[in-house]
Amino acid sequence: MLGKGKMRLPAKVKLVEVGPRDGLQNEPQTISTAVKIEWIDRLAGSGLRFIEVGSFVSPKWVPRMADTADVIAGLAVRDGVRYGVLVPNMRGFEAARSAGVKEIAVFAAASETFSRNNVNCSIAESLGRFRPVCEAAQTAGIAVRGYVSCVLGCPYEGEVPPQAVARVAKELMAMGCYEISLGDTIGRGTPARAQGLIDTVAEAVPVESLAAHFHDTYGQALANILAVLEKGVAVIDSAVAGLGGCPFAEGATGNAASEDVLYMLNGLGIETGVDLKQLAQAGQFICDQLGRPTASKAARALSGKAGR
Amino acid sequence: MLGKGKMRLPAKVKLVEVGPRDGLQNEPQTISTAVKIEWIDRLAGSGLRFIEVGSFVSPKWVPRMADTADVIAGLAVRDGVRYGVLVPNMRGFEAARSAGVKEIAVFAAASETFSRNNVNCSIAESLGRFRPVCEAAQTAGIAVRGYVSCVLGCPYEGEVPPQAVARVAKELMAMGCYEISLGDTIGRGTPARAQGLIDTVAEAVPVESLAAHFHDTYGQALANILAVLEKGVAVIDSAVAGLGGCPFAEGATGNAASEDVLYMLNGLGIETGVDLKQLAQAGQFICDQLGRPTASKAARALSGKAGR
Repeated sequence: MLGKGKMRLPAKVKLVEVGPRDGLQNEPQTISTAVKIEWIDRLAGSGLRFIEVGSFVSPKWVPRMADTADVIAGLAVRDGVRYGVLVPNMRGFEAARSAGVKEIAVFAAASETFSRNNVNCSIAESLGRFRPVCEAAQTAGIAVRGYVSCVLGCPYEGEVPPQAVARVAKELMAMGCYEISLGDTIGRGTPARAQGLIDTVAEAVPVESLAAHFHDTYGQALANILAVLEKGVAVIDSAVAGLGGCPFAEGATGNAASEDVLYMLNGLGIETGVDLKQLAQAGQFICDQLGRPTASKAARALSGKAGR
Repeated sequence: MLGKGKMRLPAKVKLVEVGPRDGLQNEPQTISTAVKIEWIDRLAGSGLRFIEVGSFVSPKWVPRMADTADVIAGLAVRDGVRYGVLVPNMRGFEAARSAGVKEIAVFAAASETFSRNNVNCSIAESLGRFRPVCEAAQTAGIAVRGYVSCVLGCPYEGEVPPQAVARVAKELMAMGCYEISLGDTIGRGTPARAQGLIDTVAEAVPVESLAAHFHDTYGQALANILAVLEKGVAVIDSAVAGLGGCPFAEGATGNAASEDVLYMLNGLGIETGVDLKQLAQAGQFICDQLGRPTASKAARALSGKAGR
C-alpha cells in the first residue's frame, strides 16, 4: 500500500446491528419489552436491514433475553428487514420457529477452553448440537448465521491459531450457514493479525460469506474493520452506542459502535443504506433508557453539534 | 489490498507525545509545575524520545502553559530525549532559547478562517511571523517542527483541499522545518481521505518528513493512523489517556490515545522503543491528578487486568 494508489474496498457493506442481543444481554438493568420493540423499530427506521433482536437461551443464563418471543411478536413487519435470534440447540430452534423468525444464529468458539466455559462443552460437541438445528432450519426455510468467537484471542488460552478458526468456520458452512461472523470476543486483535485471519479463513470459506464482529476493548475495532474491508470483507457486525460485552470474557467490553463504523464507511464512500443521524438517534434512545452516555464518539460529536 | 498479501508498513515509528502541551492546554483545572515535571519524567521513562512539554504563548490566551519555562528548568536531562515547545513568534522564540530548549514548533493552519480565528491573522501573515523564527532557530542550532492544522476539515470552512495543506507544508519545509505534523484538528477525517491527503502532500514534502496528528472526535483516529502508516508515514503524534482538544474548534475533543496507538503498533510488529505498561502508568498518573478516567481503551483494559 506504500506509495500512491487508493485502497481497494467493497462498494457496499451489509451492517448487522447486534445491539438488541449482544448489546443488552449483559446489561445490569432490565429494559422493558415495549422499549426494546420501540428501539428495534427505530433501528430499522434508520435503514438497517439485519438486526439481531434476541436469543432463545435459558433465562437462567441470560435473563435479559427472556422476553425474546414477546419482542418478536411485537415487531412490525418491514419489507426487507430481517430480525435474527441466537439459538443454542433444538429447543431454542423450536422456540424460534414458533416465534416465526426467518433467521437464526448459532454460536461456536475457536477455543476449546472458551467453549467449555461458555457453552459447557467441547467445540466438537457444540457443532454436534448445531447440526440438527441447521437441518431443521433448512427444512423450515429459516436462514442460519454462524458465529465463531475468540477468533483473535481467547481469555483463557491467549493466542488462537487462524487455522482453528478456519476449521470451525468451514464446518458451520458445511452445515448450511449462509454467513460466518468472526468474533474478536476480547478485542485483542490488531489490523495485520485481522488480515492474516481473513487470508487463512478465506481459504476455507468464501470471503463473501465472512462477517467481522470486533469488540473495541483495546480501541482497535475500527482499525481492524478497515483492515478486513481491505481484504474484501463486506459484512460488519456492530452495536449502536458501542453497547455490549461478553460475560465470560474478562475485560471484553463494548462492540464496535455502529455510528462510528457508519461514519467511517460514509467517509470511505461505501454504500450501506443506513442514515447516520437516525442511527445516532436510535442509539441515544437506548442510552437514555439505560441512563448512560453513549460509547460512540461520532454520536457524541454529532449530538454536540445538534445541540448548537 | 484485496486478496492475499500483507500490509506494507514502516518497520519503526517515532511517537511524539503531545499530552503535556496539546493535552493540558485547555484543561479547566491547573496542574502544578511539580506534577507536570513528574508526569513528563514518567513519560520519558516509558521510552518516549519526543515529548512536547509546553508553549511560550501569551498566558492571557493559554494560562495552562504559563509555567513552561519552570517546567523545562525542572526536567532532568535524559540522553536522547527531546523536549519541544510551541512558539508563535520571535518573542516566544527568545523565551524558548533562554529556557535552553533544543526543539521548537510553529503552528500554521490550512484554512484561512481557522487561521484568523486561531492566531488572528491570515495564513500568509502567520508564515511571515515564522520565517524569522526559523532563521533564528537555525542560527541557534534549535530544531523546528511545523504544524499544519485543519488538514482534513475546518470547523468554519468545512472541506479543506489537500493542495492547500501541501502549500503550507511546503513553505514550512522551505523555512527549515525538519518535520511537518498534519493535524486533523476536528477529527472529521476518514481513512481514504487521510491517504489522499498524504498522496498530495507527499508531492510537496518527502513522506519521511510527515507526521500524523489525528484527533479522535469521531472515533476515527486509529483507523486514520493505520491508513497513513500504509502510505509510509512513520511519525505519529498522540497524547496519553487521549487528553486534549482544541479551544477554537467546535467539538474537537481528544487526541489519539498514545496507549491505543502503541497497542496497535505493537500488534503490527512496528518498533517504537516505548513500553506500553509504563506508558499506561504515566497516563494513569495524570488522570489521577485530573480526577478523571482515562480515555484510552487499551489503558482501561490493561488496568482492569492488572487489578485482578
